[in-house]
Amino acid sequence: MLTVTILGNNSAVPAFNRHPTSQVVTQDGTNYLVDCGEGTQIQMIKYKVRRGKISHIFISHLHGDHYYGLIGLLNTFGLLSHLQELHVFAPAPLQEIIELQLKVAETHLPYALHFHTISGNATLVDNEQITIKCFRTDHRIPTYGFTFEEKTRKRKLLIEKVREQEIPVTFYSSLQEGLDYTKPDGTVVYNADITTTPAPGNKYAFCADTRYDERIIEHIRGFDLIYHETTYLDNLQEQAFARFHSTTRQAGTIALKAGVKRLLIGHFSSKYNELEPFLEETKSVFANTSLAMEGQTYEIS
Amino acid sequence: MLTVTILGNNSAVPAFNRHPTSQVVTQDGTNYLVDCGEGTQIQMIKYKVRRGKISHIFISHLHGDHYYGLIGLLNTFGLLSHLQELHVFAPAPLQEIIELQLKVAETHLPYALHFHTISGNATLVDNEQITIKCFRTDHRIPTYGFTFEEKTRKRKLLIEKVREQEIPVTFYSSLQEGLDYTKPDGTVVYNADITTTPAPGNKYAFCADTRYDERIIEHIRGFDLIYHETTYLDNLQEQAFARFHSTTRQAGTIALKAGVKRLLIGHFSSKYNELEPFLEETKSVFANTSLAMEGQTYEIS
Repeated sequence: MLTVTILGNNSAVPAFNRHPTSQVVTQDGTNYLVDCGEGTQIQMIKYKVRRGKISHIFISHLHGDHYYGLIGLLNTFGLLSHLQELHVFAPAPLQEIIELQLKVAETHLPYALHFHTISGNATLVDNEQITIKCFRTDHRIPTYGFTFEEKTRKRKLLIEKVREQEIPVTFYSSLQEGLDYTKPDGTVVYNADITTTPAPGNKYAFCADTRYDERIIEHIRGFDLIYHETTYLDNLQEQAFARFHSTTRQAGTIALKAGVKRLLIGHFSSKYNELEPFLEETKSVFANTSLAMEGQTYEIS
Repeated sequence: MLTVTILGNNSAVPAFNRHPTSQVVTQDGTNYLVDCGEGTQIQMIKYKVRRGKISHIFISHLHGDHYYGLIGLLNTFGLLSHLQELHVFAPAPLQEIIELQLKVAETHLPYALHFHTISGNATLVDNEQITIKCFRTDHRIPTYGFTFEEKTRKRKLLIEKVREQEIPVTFYSSLQEGLDYTKPDGTVVYNADITTTPAPGNKYAFCADTRYDERIIEHIRGFDLIYHETTYLDNLQEQAFARFHSTTRQAGTIALKAGVKRLLIGHFSSKYNELEPFLEETKSVFANTSLAMEGQTYEIS
C-alpha cells in the first residue's frame, strides 16, 4: 500500500498553525521523506511518523521553506543513532551547506550519509518495490517534482491448487511470473487456474513549487494521486506567474489534462486564513480534489 | 524594565513538547534575541513575541540546537519586510553559512544585515539604555554567554518643585545628572530636594552551554537574574563533564558563589520527561531557583 502523510502544507512563512512543506510517502513500512521545511522533525513527533523508517530524503529545491529542517533532522538521526544509512537527493549546493554546518559544529554523524545530486529528469530509485523519478518544474531556481510508482507485484499462488497439481517448488517463481506448467505426462496446468492477478502498482506524484506548466503532464499521466501547489486563489494569477507559483484553477487544469484520479492541493500562501475557497475553486475544474491537511494520511489506490 | 521570555528550554533534540534554546530579553520595548534553535519563529508566533521589535540577535555557539532557526527567521523578516536593519553577533562561521544559504536561494534580503564576529570577552552593545557583553564559557566548541546590564537611569525631576524654584529649563539636564542649582541671588537649591534617585539598572546573564566553570563568576557577580544550563541531574556529573555540560547542583553552586539574586535553569536533556527533580536538586544548593518554562516571562529586578 502507498500512502502520503502531510507534515506541512503552507508556503514560505509559518502562519495560522500551518507549517512549511514536508510530506512522507510510505510504502510497505518504508518512509520516503519529501521536502523538509523548518520544524519537520517536530511535526514528525506530533504525528507519530517513524523517523527510523526513513532511508531516503528528496528535496525539491533550495528555497528555505523546503529544506531548513533537514540539518536538524540529520543531527537528530545521529543522536538517536538508529540509522544504517541515509540517501539524500537534492540540487547540488545542499551538500556544501550541510557539510559546512556539520564541520563548524565538529559533528561526525554516526551513520553513512550519501548525497545524490539531481540536475534533470532522472530515475533516482529503482528496486523490486518502487520506482522513484524526478522531473523539472518551472520555478525561480532549479526545482524538481518526484513520482513514486509501485511495482506491480508478482502473481500470487493459490497454494492448495498448486500442491494439488504436484508442481515442484523450484517452478514457483516461474508461476509468479505468469508461466504455465507442463507436467511430465504433457498435461498443461494453466497459470490463470492456480494464481491470482495482483492489483497494478499505485502511482503518486509530488509536483513541487511550479508555475502552470503543461510539460509536467507527461510525467504524471493517469496517476492515482498527485499533489500540486496552489499558493494563490485564482484572482491572483498574475502574482502567481510573477512569483513562479500556481493558482487553484491551474492546479485543477493540470490534474484534468493529465487524467489523474485524485488531486491534493497545498503550499497555501500565508496571506490566507481560510482554505475552503481553495477547495471550491479547484473543484470547479477538477472534482476529486482534497486539501492537503497537516497530520492527515491519504491512501493512494 | 528588563524581562526574559523563554522560547525553548530543551537541549539537542526536541522532546516532550520542549524546544531547542531561544529566549528574548526585552528592555523598554526593544527585543534582544538570544539563540535561535529550530522552530524559534513558530514559538514567537505562539507566544506573541513582537518580531518587528528585534534588532539584535546573539548566537552563543554553532551547535545546531542554538541556531538552526536563524536562517528561517531572517527570511521571514525579509518577507514581512518591516525591519530597518538587523545586527547578528555570533562566532565567525555563521556568516558564511547564512550567506551561502541566501545565495543558493537567490534571496536578497530587503534590509541591512550586519554580522559581528565574537571571538573573546568583549562589549557588544553600549548605548544610553543598556550594555551587552559576551564572555567565553567552557564548551566543546567556542561558546559565549551574554550579560545584559541596564544603565542606571537619570534622576527624575520633581517638576512642581523645580518650577517653584524658577530653575531655567536649560539647567534641567544638569539636574538629571545630580547637580545642585545656584540662584542668581546665591541661594543654593539642593538636587536631593527637587529630584528622586532612580532604581539601579537591572542585570541579567545568559550563561550558555558550559561545563561547571568558576571563571564565569566574575562576569555575573551580584546579578539580579542568571540563566544557567542544567542538562543533567546531579547523578550524571561524569556524563556532564564528558559532554561539556552542567548538572543541577553545579548550576546552583555557580549562582551561590556569584551572589546572584535569582537563578533560572534550562537546557534539559531530552532523556528527562519530568522537570521537578531539576528544581529540587538545584534548590538544595540555591533556594531562589526557577525552571525556565517555555512561554513564560521572568521579570528581572
